Amino acid sequence: MGETGYDLVIRSGTLATAGESFVADLAIAGGRIAAIGENLPPGRDEIDACGLLVLPGGVDAHCHVDEPPYAGARHADDFRSASRAAACGGTTTILPFANQVPDRPLRQSLEDYHRRAEGRSLIDYAFHLIIRQPTASVVGQELPSLIAEGYTSFKVFMTYPGYMLEDEPILELLDLTRREGALLMVHAENGHCVHWMTERLERAGDVGLGAHGRAAPPAVEREATHRAIALAEVAGARVLLVHVSSAQALEQIRWAQDRGLPVLAETCPQYLFLGQADLERPGWEAAKFICSPPPRGPQDADALWRGIAQGAFQLVSSDHCAYRLDGREGKRAHGDELHFRKVANGVPGIETRLPLLFHEGVGKGRLTLQQFVAATSTNPARIYGLYPRKGGLAIGGDADIAIWDPAKRVTIRHAELHDACDYTPYEGRELEGWPVVTLSRGERIWDRGRVSEAYGRGRFLPCDRLGPPSS
Amino acid sequence: MGETGYDLVIRSGTLATAGESFVADLAIAGGRIAAIGENLPPGRDEIDACGLLVLPGGVDAHCHVDEPPYAGARHADDFRSASRAAACGGTTTILPFANQVPDRPLRQSLEDYHRRAEGRSLIDYAFHLIIRQPTASVVGQELPSLIAEGYTSFKVFMTYPGYMLEDEPILELLDLTRREGALLMVHAENGHCVHWMTERLERAGDVGLGAHGRAAPPAVEREATHRAIALAEVAGARVLLVHVSSAQALEQIRWAQDRGLPVLAETCPQYLFLGQADLERPGWEAAKFICSPPPRGPQDADALWRGIAQGAFQLVSSDHCAYRLDGREGKRAHGDELHFRKVANGVPGIETRLPLLFHEGVGKGRLTLQQFVAATSTNPARIYGLYPRKGGLAIGGDADIAIWDPAKRVTIRHAELHDACDYTPYEGRELEGWPVVTLSRGERIWDRGRVSEAYGRGRFLPCDRLGPPSS
Amino acid sequence: MGETGYDLVIRSGTLATAGESFVADLAIAGGRIAAIGENLPPGRDEIDACGLLVLPGGVDAHCHVDEPPYAGARHADDFRSASRAAACGGTTTILPFANQVPDRPLRQSLEDYHRRAEGRSLIDYAFHLIIRQPTASVVGQELPSLIAEGYTSFKVFMTYPGYMLEDEPILELLDLTRREGALLMVHAENGHCVHWMTERLERAGDVGLGAHGRAAPPAVEREATHRAIALAEVAGARVLLVHVSSAQALEQIRWAQDRGLPVLAETCPQYLFLGQADLERPGWEAAKFICSPPPRGPQDADALWRGIAQGAFQLVSSDHCAYRLDGREGKRAHGDELHFRKVANGVPGIETRLPLLFHEGVGKGRLTLQQFVAATSTNPARIYGLYPRKGGLAIGGDADIAIWDPAKRVTIRHAELHDACDYTPYEGRELEGWPVVTLSRGERIWDRGRVSEAYGRGRFLPCDRLGPPSS
Amino acid sequence: MGETGYDLVIRSGTLATAGESFVADLAIAGGRIAAIGENLPPGRDEIDACGLLVLPGGVDAHCHVDEPPYAGARHADDFRSASRAAACGGTTTILPFANQVPDRPLRQSLEDYHRRAEGRSLIDYAFHLIIRQPTASVVGQELPSLIAEGYTSFKVFMTYPGYMLEDEPILELLDLTRREGALLMVHAENGHCVHWMTERLERAGDVGLGAHGRAAPPAVEREATHRAIALAEVAGARVLLVHVSSAQALEQIRWAQDRGLPVLAETCPQYLFLGQADLERPGWEAAKFICSPPPRGPQDADALWRGIAQGAFQLVSSDHCAYRLDGREGKRAHGDELHFRKVANGVPGIETRLPLLFHEGVGKGRLTLQQFVAATSTNPARIYGLYPRKGGLAIGGDADIAIWDPAKRVTIRHAELHDACDYTPYEGRELEGWPVVTLSRGERIWDRGRVSEAYGRGRFLPCDRLGPPSS
Repeated sequence: MGETGYDLVIRSGTLATAGESFVADLAIAGGRIAAIGENLPPGRDEIDACGLLVLPGGVDAHCHVDEPPYAGARHADDFRSASRAAACGGTTTILPFANQVPDRPLRQSLEDYHRRAEGRSLIDYAFHLIIRQPTASVVGQELPSLIAEGYTSFKVFMTYPGYMLEDEPILELLDLTRREGALLMVHAENGHCVHWMTERLERAGDVGLGAHGRAAPPAVEREATHRAIALAEVAGARVLLVHVSSAQALEQIRWAQDRGLPVLAETCPQYLFLGQADLERPGWEAAKFICSPPPRGPQDADALWRGIAQGAFQLVSSDHCAYRLDGREGKRAHGDELHFRKVANGVPGIETRLPLLFHEGVGKGRLTLQQFVAATSTNPARIYGLYPRKGGLAIGGDADIAIWDPAKRVTIRHAELHDACDYTPYEGRELEGWPVVTLSRGERIWDRGRVSEAYGRGRFLPCDRLGPPSS
Repeated sequence: MGETGYDLVIRSGTLATAGESFVADLAIAGGRIAAIGENLPPGRDEIDACGLLVLPGGVDAHCHVDEPPYAGARHADDFRSASRAAACGGTTTILPFANQVPDRPLRQSLEDYHRRAEGRSLIDYAFHLIIRQPTASVVGQELPSLIAEGYTSFKVFMTYPGYMLEDEPILELLDLTRREGALLMVHAENGHCVHWMTERLERAGDVGLGAHGRAAPPAVEREATHRAIALAEVAGARVLLVHVSSAQALEQIRWAQDRGLPVLAETCPQYLFLGQADLERPGWEAAKFICSPPPRGPQDADALWRGIAQGAFQLVSSDHCAYRLDGREGKRAHGDELHFRKVANGVPGIETRLPLLFHEGVGKGRLTLQQFVAATSTNPARIYGLYPRKGGLAIGGDADIAIWDPAKRVTIRHAELHDACDYTPYEGRELEGWPVVTLSRGERIWDRGRVSEAYGRGRFLPCDRLGPPSS
Repeated sequence: MGETGYDLVIRSGTLATAGESFVADLAIAGGRIAAIGENLPPGRDEIDACGLLVLPGGVDAHCHVDEPPYAGARHADDFRSASRAAACGGTTTILPFANQVPDRPLRQSLEDYHRRAEGRSLIDYAFHLIIRQPTASVVGQELPSLIAEGYTSFKVFMTYPGYMLEDEPILELLDLTRREGALLMVHAENGHCVHWMTERLERAGDVGLGAHGRAAPPAVEREATHRAIALAEVAGARVLLVHVSSAQALEQIRWAQDRGLPVLAETCPQYLFLGQADLERPGWEAAKFICSPPPRGPQDADALWRGIAQGAFQLVSSDHCAYRLDGREGKRAHGDELHFRKVANGVPGIETRLPLLFHEGVGKGRLTLQQFVAATSTNPARIYGLYPRKGGLAIGGDADIAIWDPAKRVTIRHAELHDACDYTPYEGRELEGWPVVTLSRGERIWDRGRVSEAYGRGRFLPCDRLGPPSS
Repeated sequence: MGETGYDLVIRSGTLATAGESFVADLAIAGGRIAAIGENLPPGRDEIDACGLLVLPGGVDAHCHVDEPPYAGARHADDFRSASRAAACGGTTTILPFANQVPDRPLRQSLEDYHRRAEGRSLIDYAFHLIIRQPTASVVGQELPSLIAEGYTSFKVFMTYPGYMLEDEPILELLDLTRREGALLMVHAENGHCVHWMTERLERAGDVGLGAHGRAAPPAVEREATHRAIALAEVAGARVLLVHVSSAQALEQIRWAQDRGLPVLAETCPQYLFLGQADLERPGWEAAKFICSPPPRGPQDADALWRGIAQGAFQLVSSDHCAYRLDGREGKRAHGDELHFRKVANGVPGIETRLPLLFHEGVGKGRLTLQQFVAATSTNPARIYGLYPRKGGLAIGGDADIAIWDPAKRVTIRHAELHDACDYTPYEGRELEGWPVVTLSRGERIWDRGRVSEAYGRGRFLPCDRLGPPSS
């Protein structure tokens, strides 16, 4: 207890971390967790959490916020709405992407993103870099300097025109991460195959939205996953496979982990809850589910759930990437044609990530509460160098906390969500369990229905380097 | 803080649990953990843990203490010496076995064990039952009643004359554990094969101590492991494979876990550090390493380490089973002949379990500190129904704590260990890291070289039932 | 050409062996194949095989004929009807079982079987022994002596009361086969599990014929398969898994073969064409499909087909075991109750084996003609020590030949088959391809609709020993 | 027997095909096999083959002969010396490569190769095409037309500057082969990785010949193998992995085959007999073993042998690619520096392929005689559309026959081989079994030490299209 006493005491909640779970009081002072104990002295403010869960705030390590338009499609969310929605869903830290602008210094791209976030974010944030042009100066000078400043994770794409990197630049980046204690995130789909399948489908006139799934079957993800693993093995580096969608890709990841290769992996709710059947829905309804890799369906989802429970996946992130259905800047940026290549690619999910996973995972016995906290908060904080400041209930760590009512029944309605999109792919699902209060550095930013308007209070978080791969 | 203040405050240590790690004070009142925080108020007693690790005390879920002699061989340790050695090695809870005496009520066997433990143990303890005669009344009446009283785990053997159960009684026991929320532990070696190989080796005159390994090759363990998994699958029950020694058995365990079967597994330091080469040492020296399954060697050990890091193994226990080399009641109970069948089977390890694993696991980057705590304390406490009373740093839980000096350099010498055996298989190994203070319910039972003599302070712990297999 | 010319020339057929396929004439003299060539000189008799296939006669290495009644159920077929049906389906050699009668010399059992076959069989035959009591004198004296006389293969059961052997006698027999160049065939289902599941189903009142499949799920076959492989590995012997029914068992077999263990395997048409859905048919109809292991269904069948094509299975046999539906000595030997334990176990198939496999395998492109010949004729002849006398188109070998019309369309009707059963499980299936002429040692025993009545012309075939496992 | 009688009768040899083995006479008329039988009428010429093996002549489906120099290095062999060496080693058909010359019509490249072969080859030959520039006109017009003319197999490279194709052109070619009944052969090493590793090794100064193996570790072959399989899966086409060198690549091939994908594979003697240890030999000696992929060593070789025996490999070819050690046009075309990138890449082996495989495979019990014939003669003939003209002992097929003395002991000495290279990597090996007579279309081209000089008698063989992948 600081000299001036506690600012806030959360009383008698069930605290749960990645390792433990017990009933206790939790005291906050100066925005940080000051004590956990029985019968802690009174705080200036108190919350009665009896019967509620007191969890580390979620860390959403994969989301797209206010990036520059891609082929005319503009993200629905800026940092205000995205951070607001995150907070209302129990998430207190986000790691969106700063997208390298070709032919400009990386630092310039980063500064642009800082400008977008500053003054707007309700919660703290760090940035991953998306590397499109890993020139010699980017790899040799810019990145080492940025790593030292706290930008320690980079994402690369094995698909998408304008983004797809060939194997050798990926090897260069892997080698860099090995030397510098950084981490490479890989979108693993074979872009050559996707392009070839796309042309084949177009020639066959199979261009409805269901063709989105057929253009990138699991073999395409499995191949790129195997390749990314092999490249990391050759470079002697760690690698993180993001948004894994299929049992076939998971099989490759297990294969590598079982042989002791330092391979990390992430999946997302869209691959646990959605599927090809959604892409086959009539008309523009299907557009709500278009994201890459495409959602597969129940058999793959079952395998992915097991992968989370067994630790093959360390992370469950949202890959929030919201485009509005209406208007001309979102899903329909390329027009009204129902053509699988002409619908902007991405689904919203920053607010629903935790409740969906809690309900179907913890509620149905697929995951323990510890596994839930680990996959959604502690592991991303650790992996990206934010722990113990974020991702736990560590004494001295930021008081980023989500208080959950595990019995609260909610039917998901986009009308009641807080992002700036105009739909949710989970509309109508009935869940049990939802965060009722969210604290960021001890401040109530979401409190039983009311959202803070203190936009801009969120701060940038530099990330620590990672230790050697074997640790 | 209770009204009367804290009894003891451990100041400024690095606390580590299965999920987190941070610097904080930890306060104890009434034998339980009362608070964790910054600048906690003074306790009546204090320990400066600056630069030290404050870990949950170890839970050793597999050890043999003062069981009745088996074919003339008597355990070196009674509950005094075993609990003393455990405490000096950072372990605060043990789960030894209560061995069913044939043709008598189980409860009677149990009472005998309670008599052996009461008044002697320095630390708290629970009992697993060893079931040799699963008669209809044992399965139908005695066990359900004992489960309700806190004996929720039973071990069975697929080998050893007088112990080996055939498949159908194992199915009956698995079915019982499923119905009653208990857990079956299986010693998985095919006893028919071991017997057959033994006779073959004897006919060939290959009876030196090295033949101990050849009589039970990995195929024999792999087969029984696969069979135990299949029996559990048929019965719809959880199963725990104990003291897994080989990569081949681990492969079966992974196979099951990857398919979503609720299969748990344990390994032991002897399989991480020892091997067939030790069994080939000259003369009686080899007898120090005779245990079952036999230790294999470096390649298997590498696979087992990966299995711990990835969570395929939830538990690392000691399987402490100490027989003295000298005298007529230990290793030589059957005489002085160097014959692999005539040496008592088992190795000591209750005191060295944690330091060995810490040094080679945490120290060499094979395991994180969280994985170490999970495998040696939190997971066994959870799996056997003792958490949150034991196995963590939970507020309200027993103040069973080991304070480690991670930089302390120790050369293992049996002369400095605390069991009643007369050797250690790890003699001469140099380690970094050792517990310097051990607390049991807040009391210092091991304190920088001095051991408590409060034998009998240890209490019996009834175990909770387990939840359904899928959780 | 012998001095006296050829007895029979088959002119211009497409000859196919396990390795080759070409158009040629085939000449027979003295019951043996004398020449294959272009424009061979005329024979005393000729067959125009233009447009037809000339294949080695089938070798059915797994069939039950005229064994003593088992619990009152009597095989429908004696050696007359079984060999007649075999011949009409293109099979020229059968290897039925001689079942050890407990407590009597093996030779006495064998003599009984010889009496049943002599004077009755239309085609040549060898015997496998079924070993129920592998006493020391059986293993040590009787079997070595019988092996020397041409009885080189023995079958054992891991299930069935009165037949089930435990692991150690199986090890003894494997060791014997290794020493003596013989082969152990294993019925791999875990009888303990089947018994336990059966009692469980009975207690639950789930006793209809569909429960036959539930009492022996794939895990039960997988376990015993893994165990049989491990026993063979421990003994250093070859092993043959007979009538494999499930993808799970096949996975174990592949696992072993990929590691270089000498594991052979057989599957049967009932596992390629039938399934649990058939066991769920109403009333006594389901009884037509009751055999052990139970047929699984399309997913398992797909895996099995791949296993044949890739050589994981070397053999496709019939496991013909016919019980009549009507009367009191067949399927209903235990009464009219529709209870899964009270229906005699086995299906007929000696005549339909080859046409079913030809149509679905060769006709649909799953197997080449070479793979078909290998799996149904050459491999069984080689494995059981009958090649080159049987199983090929070897010069000097017996002229056992099936001439197929690959375009002949047949609807399977039991009324048109030639066994003594009263149904076929394949009634109504439409096939393309059927043998139109069958020759045994050059004699037409099946000729475009007419069956020979030369019962008793079939001769006993002593089998050669096998070479070492690695060859 | 033709009206004019047989030209040649091989008397009383042990004939062996891919499926059978028996003693018989074999008669030849008009260059084709006319009859196989007992006591065939006398021929104008006779060979007494009593105690000898009469096998189909070998088909070497992978060899490089007289291609234009690559970076200054010139093949040691033209069609005279290559076909002569082949014949003396029991091979009667070769399929060398016709290498597309960039920016010229494929047909023009082919004509050049025909000019090189015509008038020189002692044995018959077909051509695979190497495709370096799969332009739209190559894929859309030139190849379909060439396929129709008997060029039905194409090889592509996933490595080598100037040859390496990216994934999309490979997909185009796979799609073409699917439509047209052709076959794509893939050299599967990831050229990006090899390039990157090469630069890394050079920077580290690790440039001795042993670095050749380190620049292309098994992960690099495994990755490309997985990718080639995935591309074929996406395209719905067959694929053939050539010269597989490592257990890791084989694991991928098995994975695919077990799932029913139509994946074919080839290995070569250099991967069964040589290894990294040879690359580490002192000085220029190591250059004798430099080929790509690099030879690995005994553990990989053991896995490859099992792969041949089980049929995971259908083909064992030589990948004969001879460069002389002396002079300036072979191994030293880039100078005398012992730098792993500056030694011409390839080993001779066209003459030793069959004897090496016979000795170590058939002689040591790793392969049956049938498996040997299948892998070296019948399978390549079938796969490349030359059967039954080549690859068997089919009546009517070309009388291409190798008569082996299985007991002949030979010490391999380059001085006694017949190619135009100046070394063999197998110098000094002692073998048992060697072809003593080789017939091509009935003519003795190798006869107990004498080689025919009828250069130019060899004819071009157009290849048939392949059937659909599933057959």
